[in-house]
Amino acid sequence: MERNVRLSPQDKEQMLSYFEAEVMQVLNWLAAFSPDEEGGITRLLYTDGWLETQQALAVKMASYGLSTSFDNVGNLFGKLQGEDMDAPSIITGSHIDTVVQGGMYDGAYGIAAGLLALDYLHKHYGKPKRTLELVSLCEEEGSRFPMAYWGSGSIVGKRNFEQIVHLQDSYEVFFADAMQRCGFGEGTARDSRRHDIGAFIEVHIEQGAVLEKEGIAIGVVDTIAGQRRLKFEVVGESNHAGTTPMHMRRDALEGVSMMIQTLRQETIRIGSPLVATVGRLQVQPNVPNVVPGKVIFTVDARHADEAALDCFCRWVLGAFASIAADRQLELHGTEWFREEPVPMNERLKQQLDAVCGELSISSKRMISGAGHDAQMFEHICPTAMLFVPSRRGISHSPEEYTEPSELAVGVLVLTELLYRLGYEGEEL
Amino acid sequence: MERNVRLSPQDKEQMLSYFEAEVMQVLNWLAAFSPDEEGGITRLLYTDGWLETQQALAVKMASYGLSTSFDNVGNLFGKLQGEDMDAPSIITGSHIDTVVQGGMYDGAYGIAAGLLALDYLHKHYGKPKRTLELVSLCEEEGSRFPMAYWGSGSIVGKRNFEQIVHLQDSYEVFFADAMQRCGFGEGTARDSRRHDIGAFIEVHIEQGAVLEKEGIAIGVVDTIAGQRRLKFEVVGESNHAGTTPMHMRRDALEGVSMMIQTLRQETIRIGSPLVATVGRLQVQPNVPNVVPGKVIFTVDARHADEAALDCFCRWVLGAFASIAADRQLELHGTEWFREEPVPMNERLKQQLDAVCGELSISSKRMISGAGHDAQMFEHICPTAMLFVPSRRGISHSPEEYTEPSELAVGVLVLTELLYRLGYEGEEL
Repeated sequence: MERNVRLSPQDKEQMLSYFEAEVMQVLNWLAAFSPDEEGGITRLLYTDGWLETQQALAVKMASYGLSTSFDNVGNLFGKLQGEDMDAPSIITGSHIDTVVQGGMYDGAYGIAAGLLALDYLHKHYGKPKRTLELVSLCEEEGSRFPMAYWGSGSIVGKRNFEQIVHLQDSYEVFFADAMQRCGFGEGTARDSRRHDIGAFIEVHIEQGAVLEKEGIAIGVVDTIAGQRRLKFEVVGESNHAGTTPMHMRRDALEGVSMMIQTLRQETIRIGSPLVATVGRLQVQPNVPNVVPGKVIFTVDARHADEAALDCFCRWVLGAFASIAADRQLELHGTEWFREEPVPMNERLKQQLDAVCGELSISSKRMISGAGHDAQMFEHICPTAMLFVPSRRGISHSPEEYTEPSELAVGVLVLTELLYRLGYEGEEL
Repeated sequence: MERNVRLSPQDKEQMLSYFEAEVMQVLNWLAAFSPDEEGGITRLLYTDGWLETQQALAVKMASYGLSTSFDNVGNLFGKLQGEDMDAPSIITGSHIDTVVQGGMYDGAYGIAAGLLALDYLHKHYGKPKRTLELVSLCEEEGSRFPMAYWGSGSIVGKRNFEQIVHLQDSYEVFFADAMQRCGFGEGTARDSRRHDIGAFIEVHIEQGAVLEKEGIAIGVVDTIAGQRRLKFEVVGESNHAGTTPMHMRRDALEGVSMMIQTLRQETIRIGSPLVATVGRLQVQPNVPNVVPGKVIFTVDARHADEAALDCFCRWVLGAFASIAADRQLELHGTEWFREEPVPMNERLKQQLDAVCGELSISSKRMISGAGHDAQMFEHICPTAMLFVPSRRGISHSPEEYTEPSELAVGVLVLTELLYRLGYEGEEL
């Protein structure tokens, strides 16, 4: 059943108040699983709390009229079958896992939004032309085992069982054993790899403060930024803080403080969307009356453009080497993490821009500085991502918060895009 | 028995080769007590190893013809009685305790040097006019209990039993119990407080690299530097390293790196003997992909002049406050340790200069950036201190090292000064 006209302002307001109430109900219901005694939610991959949540979600999806299934890594799908049996599915969703003491929006909001959107469309317009699916991905954060994007990566073929053979959590539990304990693993259900996805749309909180500060309702993600993580070890000489004149010192911390200053100046000079952060730093021997002999620290650099990021990282290595040489400090630098920028699908971005424009919802194109499941899906299908504001940019914390009315806007935009893709049969 | 003439170059060379062999024998003998399984020597106050060392030293002192006695805190004295029973004693010595995994020179060298000097003088010149004493002070480092200078402080009246009532070591052993276990404490022996000291001379390794780098044999300590230790807490805001644009950050570590740079520039501008060190620094949450929300760090500042040190510390507080304000960071600063500079006795310094000059031994006046027992004695009597080179300035480490020939020069200068004070009756 197709609509004859675009949504009226009255429709829009009705939908917003409906979604505002419903989305909080779903989010509060989800947040009640896996509470952390210290506050917030800790729902790590393949834990009891994780399994309970995923199983409860399957029941809930079914009660919303979706036909549910798990794949063999524990991704949960809820399907709204379309008329065209051969057309690839339009999938929306996000991840169910959290960081340790995480909040109730990161990941969960994308699942709640998808559930409400599919339910609304089903109730109002019946069977879609193209199959619509909601996915509750098993894992994204990399918080239990040292691997992220296990759920989406398994679907797109970037993750497989060979990669997890040696992985253990911090209690030395093997990945495969934890998975098996929850009933998943090779041969337990259908293979996670899919070749029948027509598009993936993810709704997420921004996890930054840009939308809030600029008073904008929706961020249409232009590109998911590329990342480099570098680790540096700077070696000078530990000396007595009282007996070593300033000119005889090889103070590793002084050298590193100059590196941090230089890094910041160059990052600001190059400008947005480049960001660079020294987040972890350890001093040795770290005693008040000893000149630091060694400092180990990390640099996290992100940019939407791969070449610009490479160029910046080369500059970092050269600039740090020069600062170290000036001070007779040894410098060892290694890159231990790299992710290339992933531009979102241009046509879908334009469709999102159009939806926001037609519904008079403020929006802007923006870079996602954080990584998301969407960057995995973009390898196999047109993918889009949209953000709603995060209060004070806080995430990965029990203080994570977005106003219910802001959450509702995201659900509305998702619903409208899914309508156009699933019911109007807009081109992908 | 008085000498008729100054030492000849032949006398000097003979004494140096004698002391070179002897000092290593005494130091190696001492180093065999309280070895640390991880390397070096760990001889903490009132431990079994400490007691064994002090008792063995008493036997050794007696074998060198000194009459020995302990006071009630465990300081060990070896006396060479002078002809004048009423004249105050000339005392030399240092401390027996070490830091955890310390070296074999810090403290021990001052005791070995005194032992050889008194033995040499006794053998060659018999009974002195003034009484000469060697002291093996029970404690200086503050490595077991949170109090330093227990030995010398008890002698000069700056430490007493009331101050230690609540002190415990890291195993929660009370100071008084540990002391009692070794047979010391109130009423166990004569009171540690003394009023009959005419001068105190301490020989020590430099613990810095100035003498080595400048190729000078003896450092005549001009002043023991004053110290201030400040602790700062800088609070910004923890944020996602990917989603927080540079201009929205309140990065505590970036602010602190600017403070460290500014501190260094001003310290160098003011110049020697000022030194300032950021030795301890901790970042929160200290995660590679999170902008640091809080940094705690220390500043250790030292100078020979109290007013200059005060002025510098006021500048530090002001400069850091301004850097914090520019970045909307909170700053909390507290002083948690303060020691005033202690100038050594001018007449004794001149006598040391003269001894070095006459014996053609290179020497320079210098500031001691480290604290020493001598700063305690200067409260009650003319006090002097002399340094020999430390290889690469290393101390408080098993790698602590001074050439035997350099150690011998220190013993020679001490012997000659004690001769002039004890036998020639030079004025104090």
